[in-house]
Amino acid sequence: MPEKELIRWLREQIGPYPGIELGPGDDAAVIAPQTDSRVLVTVDCFVEGTHFPTDAAPERTGHKVIAASISDIAAMGCYPLGCFATLAVGRSAPDAWLKALGRAMLTAAADYGAPLAGGDVTSGDGPTCISVTVVGETRGLDPVLRSGARPGQRLFVTGRLGGSLLGRHLEAAPRVGEGLFLNREVGVTAMIDLSDGLSTDLHHIADESGVGAVVRSADIPVSEAAVEMARRDGRTALEHALDDGEDFELLFAVNAAKADELRERWPFDLPLTEIGVITECGVLIEEADGSRRPLQPGGYEHEWNAR
Amino acid sequence: MPEKELIRWLREQIGPYPGIELGPGDDAAVIAPQTDSRVLVTVDCFVEGTHFPTDAAPERTGHKVIAASISDIAAMGCYPLGCFATLAVGRSAPDAWLKALGRAMLTAAADYGAPLAGGDVTSGDGPTCISVTVVGETRGLDPVLRSGARPGQRLFVTGRLGGSLLGRHLEAAPRVGEGLFLNREVGVTAMIDLSDGLSTDLHHIADESGVGAVVRSADIPVSEAAVEMARRDGRTALEHALDDGEDFELLFAVNAAKADELRERWPFDLPLTEIGVITECGVLIEEADGSRRPLQPGGYEHEWNAR
Repeated sequence: MPEKELIRWLREQIGPYPGIELGPGDDAAVIAPQTDSRVLVTVDCFVEGTHFPTDAAPERTGHKVIAASISDIAAMGCYPLGCFATLAVGRSAPDAWLKALGRAMLTAAADYGAPLAGGDVTSGDGPTCISVTVVGETRGLDPVLRSGARPGQRLFVTGRLGGSLLGRHLEAAPRVGEGLFLNREVGVTAMIDLSDGLSTDLHHIADESGVGAVVRSADIPVSEAAVEMARRDGRTALEHALDDGEDFELLFAVNAAKADELRERWPFDLPLTEIGVITECGVLIEEADGSRRPLQPGGYEHEWNAR
Repeated sequence: MPEKELIRWLREQIGPYPGIELGPGDDAAVIAPQTDSRVLVTVDCFVEGTHFPTDAAPERTGHKVIAASISDIAAMGCYPLGCFATLAVGRSAPDAWLKALGRAMLTAAADYGAPLAGGDVTSGDGPTCISVTVVGETRGLDPVLRSGARPGQRLFVTGRLGGSLLGRHLEAAPRVGEGLFLNREVGVTAMIDLSDGLSTDLHHIADESGVGAVVRSADIPVSEAAVEMARRDGRTALEHALDDGEDFELLFAVNAAKADELRERWPFDLPLTEIGVITECGVLIEEADGSRRPLQPGGYEHEWNAR
């Protein structure tokens, strides 16, 4: 299928959506944020073989790239508005794969309130590269930054962690409603979505806030997939919960005085777990016997030069 | 250089810029458009070997990807606000190449008033893929669409066309000031930037506006590079001016009553040429002897499946 035809096909799939004034087909899309809105922008790149398996169903890959990208807006506690994507299509990608991918991206984006409103498709010789941009808006809220954590605040995490590689990373659900609740109703002070893994992402909050943290190993919510991974590779389920990436759950800090209220008012089925506390310095993990050791960032970092 | 270190290095190069409230380092960037602004978004993908030569100087490639992307905001007659980029780095790209590329992107983005305010860097096995997102704003203006051309309006183009492959495509200058002048001061009715080539991009305006057009071959402004290309490959310089892509000049329609005023008030050194007229239907080229023939879209289209 020539580029033009694929683009036409994709355009036909897109309807008018609230907030999108002008969709694909011109030099740029036009979005109409609310007048009291600042605008958020996040960009993410997904490479075949690194971020999604070559043999993954295109429906799952399409869902994942959109969900993982919108997750960044959820982590700011704000409203997603629209998605944009570029696709450098490897020569081995068949038309049916492309259409299924496109359809899944369109569906996921619309489901999360951020319709796919533009893109660029080109050919490439290597693995397929998908780049996703999500635009969000504040609607009068202040975005929740990574830098707002202060000593004494409590650390919480949503969901259960670890083992997403067994498949959950392709079924990620961005915590948009949860992020908005935490920002608007609770006023959490710092937030991040878990893409690199808890042990790494907690360092991001600590570094950006200029603080430390202690997490209690007994309180980390371990997923069934982490247990399954542990059975397979001999590492512990806790290690998987700490170090595996792509959980796309929310990790956040909240004033101690609000912790009980948060637990009582939490309106979602998704588990909410208090896992530790913000301190002056040092990122530590506390064992059941009270002993503490440094929590090393164990998340995956893409290194392209072992050269 | 690990991803983290490159990202840190890039972040250190970025200063605070007007309009950017929060730059790289959090889950999303925050931009503060003016309160009467709608927001424009454009995304473009550039693949090594297709959109830039593997052996092109990274300084030129970095400039090109930013300039070509901002050109889409120029073609809407609006204000660029910020750039975002993802980079899937091929394994053969050395650190020095990456840093020079990053520096050139930062410089170009800042020069055109749309600072690079966020990104994602990852590794890939294939050619390097660069995806650029540009966010713009209207500041009370209406964006100039491709769809506003009406019969009787005059067609103009900026600059001289053709032969950009000889090098000019790497030195593109987005016509931001010109686009703003045409929108704000003149009120042009339809506009596009020439990325696919005049013969193709004119069809985009005709198709989106539901009109036709006649361009006069004698009036097409032919670049020296088009003449040089013709000398090399035996096609005519006019053919290169019509069909070569990546001129990044502006093609636009304006009410006939305003054409003289436009020429008189045009405040730029860049050539401005009236090349034809909008008609009811059919996209034609008129020779010096008055004969007309269909102008076929001759621009390059990426086809990834000769499979």
